Amino acid sequence: MVLRDDAIERLRQARLGRLATVRPDGRPHVVPFVFAIVGEGDDLIAYWAIDAKPKRRQAIQRLENIEVDPAVEFVVDGYDEDWDALWWVRATGRARVVSSIGERATAIEALTEKYPRYREAPPEGTVVAIDVDRVTGWAADDPTS
Amino acid sequence: MVLRDDAIERLRQARLGRLATVRPDGRPHVVPFVFAIVGEGDDLIAYWAIDAKPKRRQAIQRLENIEVDPAVEFVVDGYDEDWDALWWVRATGRARVVSSIGERATAIEALTEKYPRYREAPPEGTVVAIDVDRVTGWAADDPTS
Repeated sequence: MVLRDDAIERLRQARLGRLATVRPDGRPHVVPFVFAIVGEGDDLIAYWAIDAKPKRRQAIQRLENIEVDPAVEFVVDGYDEDWDALWWVRATGRARVVSSIGERATAIEALTEKYPRYREAPPEGTVVAIDVDRVTGWAADDPTS
Repeated sequence: MVLRDDAIERLRQARLGRLATVRPDGRPHVVPFVFAIVGEGDDLIAYWAIDAKPKRRQAIQRLENIEVDPAVEFVVDGYDEDWDALWWVRATGRARVVSSIGERATAIEALTEKYPRYREAPPEGTVVAIDVDRVTGWAADDPTS
């Protein structure tokens, strides 16, 4: 088990996560996504946004899913052919569409700070917050795992 | 949309996938996993195995989930700070525990061929097959997407 502080730091640094949701028909859905973590300790929020440009179809699927069922989980990881270096960190939480202008500004600021590409063209579509309930992690080189 | 042949090739080459399942209580679950693709065209199977060594808890969660609900989805992707180079390929299917000795041998052979680490220590635990129903893909630089 990766220590909690270390796990949160890895979550914060990760460039790409993979987001799992449940489709309205009950089947699982998974898609890579970029996100930014705001907050500390037990008060973490992961923000992501729809560009309103490409990926329109996929974006809508994710949004449709969380409208029906807000339970989500996402994972970040490191791969190396030396499997003793493998690790992952998983965050479990609930997703909600951000409606407040203030919170939207916070999210866009965090996203543009993390991703140079968002600085050139900030996302214009829906912003989603994942209120993180639980962070768990695993590392192959952790003697306690 | 990534062309189907190209999508299958990217799926085959990817070193790590992220597997989404649905927990018995209906919430989503996602975990990185190593896998090997066997077959061609419309007849693709993704095999993965439990090492029977570490990750015991996570491995059990995945297996518990597919016992109750075999619907799974997994994604492979490429990340680059140049977002014009982003891509992902997703496979949707049904998971089943491999019980035939012949099929288990096929799976272990594919896994050991793909991963040097499995050549040193072939997996000894449960082998799972995902019968792939659908492959979809997306690439930022694809003019048709």
